[in-house]
Order: sequence, then structure tokens, then C-alpha cells
Amino acid sequence: MKTTVSLVLALLAVAGARAEVVVRPEPIQPIEAAKPADPRKVELGKKLFFETRLSKSGFLSCNSCHNLSAGGTDNLPSSIGHKWNLGPINAPTVLNARFNLAQFWDGRAKDLTDQAGGPIANPGEMGSNHELAVEVLTTIPQYVTWFEEIYGKNPVSIEQVKDSIAAFEETLVTPDSRFDRWLKGDDAAITEAERKGYQVFKETGCIACHNGPAVGGNSFQKFGLVKAYEKDTTTVGRMGVTKNEADRFVFKVPTLRNIELTYPYFHDGSVWTLEEAVTVMSVHQFGKPIKPEDTALIVAFLKTLTGKQPDFPIPTLPPSTATTPRPSAL
Amino acid sequence: MKTTVSLVLALLAVAGARAEVVVRPEPIQPIEAAKPADPRKVELGKKLFFETRLSKSGFLSCNSCHNLSAGGTDNLPSSIGHKWNLGPINAPTVLNARFNLAQFWDGRAKDLTDQAGGPIANPGEMGSNHELAVEVLTTIPQYVTWFEEIYGKNPVSIEQVKDSIAAFEETLVTPDSRFDRWLKGDDAAITEAERKGYQVFKETGCIACHNGPAVGGNSFQKFGLVKAYEKDTTTVGRMGVTKNEADRFVFKVPTLRNIELTYPYFHDGSVWTLEEAVTVMSVHQFGKPIKPEDTALIVAFLKTLTGKQPDFPIPTLPPSTATTPRPSAL
Repeated sequence: MKTTVSLVLALLAVAGARAEVVVRPEPIQPIEAAKPADPRKVELGKKLFFETRLSKSGFLSCNSCHNLSAGGTDNLPSSIGHKWNLGPINAPTVLNARFNLAQFWDGRAKDLTDQAGGPIANPGEMGSNHELAVEVLTTIPQYVTWFEEIYGKNPVSIEQVKDSIAAFEETLVTPDSRFDRWLKGDDAAITEAERKGYQVFKETGCIACHNGPAVGGNSFQKFGLVKAYEKDTTTVGRMGVTKNEADRFVFKVPTLRNIELTYPYFHDGSVWTLEEAVTVMSVHQFGKPIKPEDTALIVAFLKTLTGKQPDFPIPTLPPSTATTPRPSAL
Repeated sequence: MKTTVSLVLALLAVAGARAEVVVRPEPIQPIEAAKPADPRKVELGKKLFFETRLSKSGFLSCNSCHNLSAGGTDNLPSSIGHKWNLGPINAPTVLNARFNLAQFWDGRAKDLTDQAGGPIANPGEMGSNHELAVEVLTTIPQYVTWFEEIYGKNPVSIEQVKDSIAAFEETLVTPDSRFDRWLKGDDAAITEAERKGYQVFKETGCIACHNGPAVGGNSFQKFGLVKAYEKDTTTVGRMGVTKNEADRFVFKVPTLRNIELTYPYFHDGSVWTLEEAVTVMSVHQFGKPIKPEDTALIVAFLKTLTGKQPDFPIPTLPPSTATTPRPSAL
């Protein structure tokens, strides 16, 4: 008996050692699968993410502009909001947003929880307000039950709404890209051209800002560092938050994870192809043109960063009741 | 050997007989689970149903107004379309729409295939046109591959688009409601009040139009049969199709399946509660008030008609390419 147990333990140890993955020592790290602390909270947050009744019109949800069927964004230059308002800036993807050092292009929200309340109450986005959003949820018994199960018998609050949406968004990571499989030692996961593209990506200098697990998202940098960006000279970026002139045209570096899916590019959504985006970056950040063959290699590498997309059943939302405030398109 | 085979066959016969469900002989029949003939076509249609690029703005999809998280409708009096256009009529649910004798409130589309092309090209709905929609899909290699796998090596056409969306919609049925379990012999599936509500539903006359598997959808009837409906006197309904004065205010009878989820009610979406809807129907169709206790019983019955909601992973859409026509919000 004792011998059998020892043998089993020894076999498990071997299996464990073999399962351990040695990650290549690169400035980009693999995305790991989400391990949610509270699956009930994630489930509630998922419903709220798809909840059109958080908008004044009853028509728009988080998923309208951060479409989880389309790379976590809307693939529009800028988002369409309440009464067809066209937003001032391109919607960043929600995928892997948990890795961002702050949220929004100008980093004005310190984390996902802080961000989640913004669009609900923005007149040009979901057009509602926090009181109305909470009132809507409070009149739907199933929501009240779910909030109670998670947050105890307190009244539903906007803090709980933000907390649960953020908990869901924490799970929106995209592991298992071909590049990550390569990082974890699978030489065959990317082609020779793609590997060479990664080399060019590093040597050209892109890696200076686009690094870490999200290949970006972890610093603020000036757009037009060497050569001023002339297409949009009114969006000041980080300066709007810090009031510091040095932060004019400084933006959070966007993630390059799933970049193939999250066109159009830049804060103004002005560029639709990766080839053009790479060219613009080279000119404006490094002050030099890039050779077309290098662009092609970098683009080939970038397309290896597409990971496993969100994969869960579409949520079913509980019905309104007679006391639920009615939507207004006006 | 022969004896064993006979025994097995005999056992199978017994099992088969026991598994056969005897359905109560009622004017409403249970919804059966979908049995798609071509799962690949359904999968393609599902992607197209969520495909915002079928709209001019790149922002609206079939699911925007037929939200599968919300009973297959948008829970708005009338839908919001391109440039925030407010539609002229309430969006009917897509759930169990396969049972309708024709599509749209006025039945102007003969089936789901015929319907699917309408909203894409309606300037106040998705705002695109069939040529543009097909061009978008043709520039996305993954779509071209999927269409080829299903329809052979023909150019992508709007007929294929409509055919695959309809094939997906054919699967959007909601079996296993409590009422259906009762129909199949489970006495405990509904309460005594709900069963009594069904009895009142029949005796009051509702069953005359709301019958069959979809509890409606199988006939055209005049809204305001006994007492004219005064809230909306401009929407003529079926007369717009037949040009026959007798069809003024005649509409397709809506399904009552999942009616708890598909508020607001009637073609004008003017009523938000089932209690009020039942009251209005009694007055306008039968010319008599209904006792509040009967209304309560009927509403209790109606809530047993909520079936299994759509349950599939959110689709992932393939990215556009450099040649894909770009969306326009204008």
C-alpha cells in the first residue's frame, strides 16, 4: 500500500515537472487564462455588460461599443452613442484591458471599476445616469436577488454595478495566441517570417512601448514623439487629466493583442490597415520611413497576437416589471 | 445469437414505448427542439445575425432589434435604426417566428428568408443595400470560404445571405416551457392558478386566435374587431399589402410564447404590462370588460409560456480586410 502511494506520488511529481512550461525570456509575456475569484460576480457582470437597460434609450449596452464578437471594440473610427452621437475618440478594446495601467486613452479612470460607470452616465454614450441605472436594476427582482447573493442585503448601488462589470471584464483575456504558444516553447507555432517580424519589431524600437503581457497598455507616451501628428491636433490626451503641458498628445499606449481585429487604429481611428499603422508609427515616433518589407514582416508578427476570443453562452436577461423606468430614445 | 438480438429488440421496443410522450389534446401544441438540417448553414447564419457590417453604419445587426438576450426583441415601442431613426412599428420577436404564417406585422414577407433581406436595405433600419452587404462579405476571406462550403463555388449572393440567416432563425425556438411540460403530461409543471388561467384563456375566447404551437402567428385578425382601437389609427396593417379595405387594421396575430419577455405589446408597443394588454384585448376584440381576477389568472397562465431561451456561445466574427467597404454613420 505504502509503496503504491509512493509510486503514485512519484509519477505525479514527474507529470507536474513535465507540465511546467518554461517561458522564453522575452519582453512580451504570455497571457494567462482568467481565474475568477467569484464566478457569481462574473456572471452578474456579464449580464450587466449586455444590459441595454443601463442606457437611457434601452438600446445600448457596454457590448454595443465593446463588441465581444468583434475583438471587444466596434470597429468604428469613433463610437455611436445616445441619439446617434458620434464620440470624440476611438473605443479601445475591452479585451485584456485588465493589463492597462489605467483606463480610457487619457488614463482618466484608474482601473476597470472606475471606468465602468463612465459610459452609463455620459450623455453622448449610454445617456443615462447612475441613479436611473440603479433604479432600473432595483425594480427587477432577479437582479436584486443576484446582487444580494454577492453583496449581501444592501440596496443595489452603482458601486456594486461597477464592481461586477469590472469582475467580468477581468475575465476578458485572450490566451493561447500563436505567439504565446511560441513564447512557451512551441517553435512551430509561428512561421519563420513571423519570427523574423518579431525580431524587426524589437530592432525597430516598437518594443520600447509595446511590451509586457498586453504588448502595450503599461505606459503613457506621446503620439508624434519625433514628428508631430497632424491629422488630429485637438485631442490633447493625458494633458486633459494632468493639466500638464508636457502631456499634450500623450496617450496610453494601446495593447497590440488581437490588433488584427481592433481596426481602425489610433485614438482617432483614422487608419484602417496594419500596414498603414506601422508606417505612421515609424514616421511619427521614430522620424524615419520604414521599408515595405519590414512593415510586412511586422504585420505578419502582429497577426500572431490574436488569442482565444470570448467564449461563453449569450446571457439571458431578466424581464422588466411594471415599476421599471421605461426607456426613452429622446 | 438470434434469441439475444430478439431480446434486445424487444427491450428497445419497450423503452421506445415508454419514452413516447402522450400530448394532451389541446388547441396549443408543445414547441419541439430544433433539428437543423445543415448545422454549417445555421452557424453561418448565426454569424450574419450578429454581423454589424450588414448595416451601413457598421453598428447595427439583426440582434440589435431582435436581441437574443432579451426575448428576441428590443423591448422598445419601436426600434431604433440608422441615424437613430425610430421605426413605425414594434419589432416582433424572432423567437418561434418560424411558426408564423408570414413575417412582419402585415405579413408582407412570406417566410423568414423573404424577411431577412428587408431590414438590411431599409434606410430607417440597417440603412445598407444588398449590393453593399454582399460586397462587404465578399471582401472577407473567411466568409467566402464558409459560403463556398455551403453553397458551392458561386459568388456570394444576397439570396445565400437570406437563406443562411433564415436557417439560423429556424433554430430559434423555445421548447420546454412549463406549459409545454404540462401539455406533455406533467401535472405539477404549472400551478392550479395557472391551469385555471388557461381555462379562462380558452373560455374568454383568446384561444380563437392564439392557438397552435406558437399560441398565435397562424392567422391575420383585425385589431379592434368589436370596438375600434383609437390609439393608432394610421397604421393600416394587412391592407397595405392586399390593398383591400377589409384588411384595414388587420395584423398577424402575434405569438404569445415568451410574452413575459417581449413587452411592450401590440403593433404600436403602447402597452407595457400583460395586465393592461389582456384588458385592452378584451375590450377591443370582445367588446366587454374583463374581471380583474380573470386578468390575473390569464397573466399567470401567460407566464408559463416562457421557454428555453437561446443558448449558444457568442459568435466570433472574422476581421475586415483592406478592401472591405468602410462603415458610414451618415
